[in-house]
Amino acid sequence: MKIYKKAILPKCFLAGALACGIKKANRLDLAVFYSEIPAKAACKFTSNKIVSSPIKVNKLHLKNNRDFRAIIVNSGNANSFTGRQGIKDAKEVAQALGGVLKIRNEKVLLASTGIIGRRLPVGKIKKNIPKLISGMSVKGINKAKLAILTTDSSAKEITVKFNMGNKIVTICGIAKGAGMIAPNMATMLAFIFTDAYIAQRALIKSLSIAVEGSFNCITVDGCMSTNDSIMVLANGAAENSLIESGKNFNLFLNSLKFVCLELAKMIIRDAEGATKFIKIKVMGARNFREAKTIGLNIANSSLFKTAMYASSQNVLGRIVASIGASGIDIDEKDLKINFSPLERKDVDIDVSVGKRKSSATIYTSDLTPEYIKINAQYN
Amino acid sequence: MKIYKKAILPKCFLAGALACGIKKANRLDLAVFYSEIPAKAACKFTSNKIVSSPIKVNKLHLKNNRDFRAIIVNSGNANSFTGRQGIKDAKEVAQALGGVLKIRNEKVLLASTGIIGRRLPVGKIKKNIPKLISGMSVKGINKAKLAILTTDSSAKEITVKFNMGNKIVTICGIAKGAGMIAPNMATMLAFIFTDAYIAQRALIKSLSIAVEGSFNCITVDGCMSTNDSIMVLANGAAENSLIESGKNFNLFLNSLKFVCLELAKMIIRDAEGATKFIKIKVMGARNFREAKTIGLNIANSSLFKTAMYASSQNVLGRIVASIGASGIDIDEKDLKINFSPLERKDVDIDVSVGKRKSSATIYTSDLTPEYIKINAQYN
Repeated sequence: MKIYKKAILPKCFLAGALACGIKKANRLDLAVFYSEIPAKAACKFTSNKIVSSPIKVNKLHLKNNRDFRAIIVNSGNANSFTGRQGIKDAKEVAQALGGVLKIRNEKVLLASTGIIGRRLPVGKIKKNIPKLISGMSVKGINKAKLAILTTDSSAKEITVKFNMGNKIVTICGIAKGAGMIAPNMATMLAFIFTDAYIAQRALIKSLSIAVEGSFNCITVDGCMSTNDSIMVLANGAAENSLIESGKNFNLFLNSLKFVCLELAKMIIRDAEGATKFIKIKVMGARNFREAKTIGLNIANSSLFKTAMYASSQNVLGRIVASIGASGIDIDEKDLKINFSPLERKDVDIDVSVGKRKSSATIYTSDLTPEYIKINAQYN
Repeated sequence: MKIYKKAILPKCFLAGALACGIKKANRLDLAVFYSEIPAKAACKFTSNKIVSSPIKVNKLHLKNNRDFRAIIVNSGNANSFTGRQGIKDAKEVAQALGGVLKIRNEKVLLASTGIIGRRLPVGKIKKNIPKLISGMSVKGINKAKLAILTTDSSAKEITVKFNMGNKIVTICGIAKGAGMIAPNMATMLAFIFTDAYIAQRALIKSLSIAVEGSFNCITVDGCMSTNDSIMVLANGAAENSLIESGKNFNLFLNSLKFVCLELAKMIIRDAEGATKFIKIKVMGARNFREAKTIGLNIANSSLFKTAMYASSQNVLGRIVASIGASGIDIDEKDLKINFSPLERKDVDIDVSVGKRKSSATIYTSDLTPEYIKINAQYN
């Protein structure tokens, strides 16, 4: 597997972006991703009980349809908590894009990120769709990866290439997110493009596995967005033999896992106001779910995060209290906690909670006065 | 009901306190509460899976025993995550106190608050017990209420007196806590003393009801301590007719509820670094549990708390995202959110989540740079 620390679109994908006026100061805020040939899709959305309008529309599109052609993304407005009007607005965007691309609306997926509770400026978006489409190119990914950002300090991008038989398969991923919810902005978004030729069922299964150990194992502030979305498009242009199961599936899965985990870690590295990158490994648990619950309980404790910011030895008691607060049955005498030097930027915390074999690794950041400043001052 | 904003011990109770050297700078750190006649007890402890040694010993004492005579409390050391040694140490303190008071060890309840994971300095405590006992008095409550504090900026105290038949019943409560877990310190503690003559079962029932709507409905940082304890001693010295059920039970319950809620609110008013006192009322829920879950999800959201600190209108989107993240099924179109002017010190937030009849009120504080400073700088 070759790793490239930038976004390189796989075969038959194009992208484009422009500033349509949702964000101020002429900042890029509208992006499109397009597959020249039909692509299979797999998506994961927030488990928040209140979901954004684009997610509601995507769910409709995913119901009877598995071949997609385009994803359109706006930043600056989440189109969430916007009721029936919000759904109407999202559908109108899909329709406008479909019209210009000459594809059915159902072939379009949507994502929005930004302020919750304000109506999407559909007019600005629709007016700019022809220009957006005519500007698409392979290099367009370099603008598109910026257009999806909100408070992020930099783009999050990774590409891997690997051989399958005598063919080269590419997986390219980009993401946004600097907090589970950024200031008044919402959302973590990730878009992954691959030219792999893969069965629908295998694509969905591989995404589920990859997300569980990556995006579902990171936390900045424990706040769950209404807009979180991860989408994979696979268009088969690499012409490899169909990936269904066995060795080829594992090869694809491992590359996808790598891409997801790298993007997830980039989000933590860019966490709002953070000064530390913290890896918490929970071992000896009865199963992955329990290990993950314990890890997330530590990672989401404000007192733990504050002690990390201060590189304070007091962190021990705070880890103990968080583990107990997780609700998982723990025998105090089985508990072993070790950490690497606290004053470094990267800190590893190893927690052993028993004698069983399951483990989980959680990535998180510290809680700093800068986090409060960023989230308080935003306007 | 007459309300006194200070601690006034009911009949036949004494208290005392001194500095035994657990805390630095000769600060009060050891307190005793004593009933001259046997008192019935009801206790509530943390639901953290890891509990402190004093709580473990209390549970043993409560098993076969319902008549208590004394509570001994130290601050500066939590005696938590201290293994078998911690239990031995707590038992030794109970034994030493029992010896001087000439009562069985099992008649003693214990509480500790402070640093987690360090051995309790039993020697310092034992050496000072004779002096502690000889100094007990009715006015001693004024030192004892200070000796239980850690990072609190002031004592938390309230007394109510009410008539039952031709007798006057007194309920006096004191508490400590400035965060669910204060910096490296742990714990919320509350001690309530009453001279009411009340049946054991009625005492336990009334405490359960009172705690559910007060101490269980406050949150500073969502962090659950290993040492949280609430204890009520009722010694019957008021000589009222036995409280079992009906009108007298309700009279007692309402007074106890008032005392618990006032103490709980004082903890929020004194929350570490807080600039706001926030009341979140969740209405229209299917049951109290769901209303409370939604309210606590809002109250524990770092982004909500940060927006409150900034008096920012962005708070709306953050409330919506928190409600959805609670996991409770909500129909977006039933959601109504109102708040009083955000720039005031006291903010009321009303959330209506549906058309049912259950509600819950949660009290919380904002998240400020000062909270991080307090919790990071503590040593």
